[in-house]
Amino acid sequence: MADKINRVVLAFSGGLDTSVILKWLQQTYGCEVVTFTADLGQGEELGPARHKAQLMGVKPEHIFIDDLREEFVADYVFPMMRANALYEGLYLLGTSIARPLIAKRQIEIAHAVGADAVSHGATGKGNDQVRFELGYYALDPTIRVIAPWREWDLGSRTALIDFAEKNQIPVPTDKRGESPFSTDANLLHTSSEGKVLEDPWTEVPDYVFSRTDDLVAAPDTPEEITIDFSQGDGVAVNGEALSPAALLARLNALGKRHGIGRLDLVENRFVGMKSRGMYETPGGTIYHAAHRAIEQLTLDRGAAHLKDELMPRYAELVYNGFWFSPEREMLQAAIDHSQAKVDGTVRLKLYKGGVHISGRKSPHSLYSERHVTFEDDAGAYDQRDAEGFIKLNALRLRLLGQRDR
Amino acid sequence: MADKINRVVLAFSGGLDTSVILKWLQQTYGCEVVTFTADLGQGEELGPARHKAQLMGVKPEHIFIDDLREEFVADYVFPMMRANALYEGLYLLGTSIARPLIAKRQIEIAHAVGADAVSHGATGKGNDQVRFELGYYALDPTIRVIAPWREWDLGSRTALIDFAEKNQIPVPTDKRGESPFSTDANLLHTSSEGKVLEDPWTEVPDYVFSRTDDLVAAPDTPEEITIDFSQGDGVAVNGEALSPAALLARLNALGKRHGIGRLDLVENRFVGMKSRGMYETPGGTIYHAAHRAIEQLTLDRGAAHLKDELMPRYAELVYNGFWFSPEREMLQAAIDHSQAKVDGTVRLKLYKGGVHISGRKSPHSLYSERHVTFEDDAGAYDQRDAEGFIKLNALRLRLLGQRDR
Amino acid sequence: MADKINRVVLAFSGGLDTSVILKWLQQTYGCEVVTFTADLGQGEELGPARHKAQLMGVKPEHIFIDDLREEFVADYVFPMMRANALYEGLYLLGTSIARPLIAKRQIEIAHAVGADAVSHGATGKGNDQVRFELGYYALDPTIRVIAPWREWDLGSRTALIDFAEKNQIPVPTDKRGESPFSTDANLLHTSSEGKVLEDPWTEVPDYVFSRTDDLVAAPDTPEEITIDFSQGDGVAVNGEALSPAALLARLNALGKRHGIGRLDLVENRFVGMKSRGMYETPGGTIYHAAHRAIEQLTLDRGAAHLKDELMPRYAELVYNGFWFSPEREMLQAAIDHSQAKVDGTVRLKLYKGGVHISGRKSPHSLYSERHVTFEDDAGAYDQRDAEGFIKLNALRLRLLGQRDR
Amino acid sequence: MADKINRVVLAFSGGLDTSVILKWLQQTYGCEVVTFTADLGQGEELGPARHKAQLMGVKPEHIFIDDLREEFVADYVFPMMRANALYEGLYLLGTSIARPLIAKRQIEIAHAVGADAVSHGATGKGNDQVRFELGYYALDPTIRVIAPWREWDLGSRTALIDFAEKNQIPVPTDKRGESPFSTDANLLHTSSEGKVLEDPWTEVPDYVFSRTDDLVAAPDTPEEITIDFSQGDGVAVNGEALSPAALLARLNALGKRHGIGRLDLVENRFVGMKSRGMYETPGGTIYHAAHRAIEQLTLDRGAAHLKDELMPRYAELVYNGFWFSPEREMLQAAIDHSQAKVDGTVRLKLYKGGVHISGRKSPHSLYSERHVTFEDDAGAYDQRDAEGFIKLNALRLRLLGQRDR
Repeated sequence: MADKINRVVLAFSGGLDTSVILKWLQQTYGCEVVTFTADLGQGEELGPARHKAQLMGVKPEHIFIDDLREEFVADYVFPMMRANALYEGLYLLGTSIARPLIAKRQIEIAHAVGADAVSHGATGKGNDQVRFELGYYALDPTIRVIAPWREWDLGSRTALIDFAEKNQIPVPTDKRGESPFSTDANLLHTSSEGKVLEDPWTEVPDYVFSRTDDLVAAPDTPEEITIDFSQGDGVAVNGEALSPAALLARLNALGKRHGIGRLDLVENRFVGMKSRGMYETPGGTIYHAAHRAIEQLTLDRGAAHLKDELMPRYAELVYNGFWFSPEREMLQAAIDHSQAKVDGTVRLKLYKGGVHISGRKSPHSLYSERHVTFEDDAGAYDQRDAEGFIKLNALRLRLLGQRDR
Repeated sequence: MADKINRVVLAFSGGLDTSVILKWLQQTYGCEVVTFTADLGQGEELGPARHKAQLMGVKPEHIFIDDLREEFVADYVFPMMRANALYEGLYLLGTSIARPLIAKRQIEIAHAVGADAVSHGATGKGNDQVRFELGYYALDPTIRVIAPWREWDLGSRTALIDFAEKNQIPVPTDKRGESPFSTDANLLHTSSEGKVLEDPWTEVPDYVFSRTDDLVAAPDTPEEITIDFSQGDGVAVNGEALSPAALLARLNALGKRHGIGRLDLVENRFVGMKSRGMYETPGGTIYHAAHRAIEQLTLDRGAAHLKDELMPRYAELVYNGFWFSPEREMLQAAIDHSQAKVDGTVRLKLYKGGVHISGRKSPHSLYSERHVTFEDDAGAYDQRDAEGFIKLNALRLRLLGQRDR
Repeated sequence: MADKINRVVLAFSGGLDTSVILKWLQQTYGCEVVTFTADLGQGEELGPARHKAQLMGVKPEHIFIDDLREEFVADYVFPMMRANALYEGLYLLGTSIARPLIAKRQIEIAHAVGADAVSHGATGKGNDQVRFELGYYALDPTIRVIAPWREWDLGSRTALIDFAEKNQIPVPTDKRGESPFSTDANLLHTSSEGKVLEDPWTEVPDYVFSRTDDLVAAPDTPEEITIDFSQGDGVAVNGEALSPAALLARLNALGKRHGIGRLDLVENRFVGMKSRGMYETPGGTIYHAAHRAIEQLTLDRGAAHLKDELMPRYAELVYNGFWFSPEREMLQAAIDHSQAKVDGTVRLKLYKGGVHISGRKSPHSLYSERHVTFEDDAGAYDQRDAEGFIKLNALRLRLLGQRDR
Repeated sequence: MADKINRVVLAFSGGLDTSVILKWLQQTYGCEVVTFTADLGQGEELGPARHKAQLMGVKPEHIFIDDLREEFVADYVFPMMRANALYEGLYLLGTSIARPLIAKRQIEIAHAVGADAVSHGATGKGNDQVRFELGYYALDPTIRVIAPWREWDLGSRTALIDFAEKNQIPVPTDKRGESPFSTDANLLHTSSEGKVLEDPWTEVPDYVFSRTDDLVAAPDTPEEITIDFSQGDGVAVNGEALSPAALLARLNALGKRHGIGRLDLVENRFVGMKSRGMYETPGGTIYHAAHRAIEQLTLDRGAAHLKDELMPRYAELVYNGFWFSPEREMLQAAIDHSQAKVDGTVRLKLYKGGVHISGRKSPHSLYSERHVTFEDDAGAYDQRDAEGFIKLNALRLRLLGQRDR
């Protein structure tokens, strides 16, 4: 904590925790705080963040509130979806994918306002601190990083609230009691962790869910929709062309209605422990299924299988915070190369928490009814070729068999 | 077709196609045919197969009808499930996994009866011919393989039925008209392909489904069940200890009732073309989800991520027919090594086609509430360690940043 | 062999075998033959090929003799070297990498002259038939391929020579006796296989070597050289800027003199058998070592390790003939992305068959003497960070240890 | 440094640094120090270590000096060699592989003497601290670890020598001046780093080499040797059966004489920086080449290629210190499964720094001269099978070509 800090850019939500951090930074470092509040589609009003920052003495020209929704979906969510990324086979990486964008914008602001440090509100036990800070360091190797949760002595909620009250920081009534869990939200998902969720045997209580309707109460009739893809990215829902963020928002509304995208997961954090979370990714779950379906028709087997083999590594890199790393960019280059002809339409049915593919078509389909048919194929495929194919694939196994059996 | 064949072991279902093959082998090769009919839980009576074989002149001691259900689940399905194998991200490999067992038993019978050849009823366009024959050759490098669909001139259904009628082979009434699709079934799944399914844009008609009830008609209330695992394999459902085959059968019944396990897939065949299939894997879908859930608690991250990276290759090997290959066995050795402590109980809810994990517990859990808690952790984890962890993970990125940005 | 062929483009070396093939194609198919002879740096005069083709009735405008050396090195050898490709850990893929270029040019000529078929002189047991034909089919899915060695009945050398003599094809004296081995050569390497080399326990006789001088007779003093790289490709030797082909030729001369690049290998062919070959890759061996050395300085660990993990797959694809495949192109995209800053100079010593790196430097070095020094590092690195780094890397192992030990 | 330490087991070489650490531990922690000195074949007398420990007040029953050479080679070096492990394509991991064994023995001693802590002399910038400590924590999750180099203020060599002199620790004359580089040695290798080696462009001076003779001065005649393998491990040299450690020592003597196994490498450390080292691995280099050669004959392609793809990950795990991790053990299980028939004899020529395979034979060879021969193969292989093999491998590329070109 030795060196003098002059100006720090804080990722500021306007909530209690980052308000306390704002004040704590001013007091502890005697420095000017610049606030940055991103609209990533988390569904909260951002006006109050400006007001709070002003109240706490942040200069108007040092309050940054940016709508990053389109950039978030177009440059982060969609590239990741091209990879069909699932962490540990199941998790759509909704929190992980937002952190690099926040870090990037913070560094841009730091350069714009001449700040010498950045700060965030992530705790010392989680992945987010890693994701933020790897982003900061990759984009500005000399930046100072202040992680208050690892530095201060406000270890308990009581201490935090005491600090807030002593410093005239308004404490929302519902924050006085312990919040029953911790959340993060953006256009892709909402995550809930901690507290009541900490026992992985205990069922997630209903009140945890905020982005998806109850499955049993969801409509009793399946709803059929279509998604159009162009070069690997979604471009329309039910035939209506939509921007990336608008498309994801539309799918979120559909998914919410049908209770789609709930995931109760025990996952392995990069910092070495297991944690249990409940994720809600309504639109992302639909999108992921549809992207795989359109790839089924338009990707060659060689490309598809290579993508499947690279995917776990890609997902691990995103989860661990290595978005701005050469290896993630290399994998992205390989993946993006495969998407040039991933065009077409997927039809899906949404029902009671399920996403069911019911059809797909493409101007660039590699599916050949002539080849696959059980009927006469007019010479497209000579079944006799299969004998040689099998014989040569078997040759090494026969040589082994002659030796070993 | 040059060499003289004396005795051939035919994989014989008793249906029209393999009955025609039986007769065709007798006529074409003038050889003795030995029939082998396996009960893999396909849900058909096997008595008629014996009767038909006898009618066509197969000696009683050359009619083999074996119940392989327990071996199938214990030695093939469960080891594959330990790998969480999904071909192309989605397919549970229900047909693929049955072929090696049939091939193995055919070769055993060939050795027992002194046969010099084996034969099967798979066509020249599909994967099954490859799976059967790679199995045969691996287990007996000198065996002769006869694949009638690649040899004969009965290319159309009319020709097949003509041949049957000329040879007094009874043709079931419903086979006279074109069957609307082609199926395969065993205890793990039923697949449907061809005909009405050949256009991947056309929705699968309701009458295709035989193993799962309609989702909309399924119960309106979720059903909660538990599955117990021991060393990576399922051992009980709802607390009742069950043999492997009985456990899978129980899950099939549960899955059927809730419309679970339907998959509409366009996949890449090993022989180079795409095909579209509808798979129903009710019990396997539940089991797969539960196995992942118990692994979440009991596998270390290193083991879990290595498994995820190896899985696509493992699934590809099973799909392509390389069950009896050194590389599949090597991967299995690695996977099995990881399962020693995969013990515990998973609770799931089944509802309207969905499998929802609602809890998991284990005597060998690696989840540590002490480490993960947002509350005071009594020193289990020092948040200050995170700084060094991040700093050293960031070091190479900072060196890069200093060079490049 | 049913359909009528009008015009076929033959990969024609001018040697005995392809001369026989030329005549055989004319006789068997009654078609016009177009010859294509590529200069890939194999070190043979190409004039005689033109003369022979004319003698056998090929029209002057149907004789194509192209110098492809620069294209070969720039677009095939160098991209492969960026991957540090080694098949089965050792083989620099000298034959494999030439085949796609020949195939591509043959298809271009076929389109230019309106040919409906292509033909090559590779046998039915080797990899080259696969590499040629996968290239043909990828670049022109409707082309007819004629592989005489798989079709004709000239199975023995005597039969071949008889055919030649009956058809006034000159048979070189040294071809009358059995050649002691079979070779392939281009600017990257010379391979020798078969005959005296078929017993993998027998030492390769001295007379097999044609591209490298005897190690014991090689100079008794090490020779020091430098190679400069720019964006991952070699651009100069000993400070002299050279085109790709000239650079490789220069390294070949240096390598030859010092007996560098001999490899006695038993390898696994794509067609399923093992074969034993002797490869001489003098310049390529030097280049490969130098490329790795300059990457040591300029590639980040993440990029370097990802490259190492992808390399075996890349090499297998090249070896098996899948150069023109989506998956090879995807891997290439990833690899090429990593090479943007692979610039600098490598110093090597050549001595008695060995290549010894003795220094490397780069304007884009990531090596930081400040960080690594045992001396005072002026705060570049805080050793205390290592504790947190280790603690969090150890956390999962400790949780495991608490459970298991 | 807060908690009270009662007894600590120190990895003690008897050299200046660990002598200073011994004293520093006694003074700083007021605790009893137990010394552990391992004979891993580093070629130093261990008697003086005992004497020094006694002089510094260590109780006789707390001085452990163990000959671990056979365990080192049999249980660490050989299993790693089965994997053909090379870190970053080149490094035989000579230092990395010794650390887990030292860690394991230290923990065993700690348990035997009731110690509550362990300590080592590795610095805070290197990999060895990680390797030691991951080993400690994996084997005893509750052990205390003391890393003096990260704790104390003896940052410079002068400070260290001052401390030694103040505490009557004898300082060897040659340690008064700065040592020109830092070394580590065991039966597998000697590494040299730092000081004069810190500029990667500067050639390594001759006086750095201690384990290999100068190449130019090495014998002018190649020396031919044989190595016998059984189940993947070396068992004899030149026909003489040898224990693992004796075999490696024999190969070291041969390699030394011929200047084999020098490696000038810039590598990526786990802690995030690049470093430059000179490694001498005379016997290991020979062994590695021979093991690959015997695998060429006895491993099936599927096993061999899977091993090649897993190898970089395996090597990274060993390098990073994850020997005692589930994922290393899983990979080992896969690798060991492949070695059951890796038996036979390899013949090599050693000459002027080079290792040249000149023949290999095996009772379990998969090489089939009948299949590979250019001569008549008596029907072992039907060349016509190749057509079907190629056609079906090409099918997906043709479908692509029809779509894209």
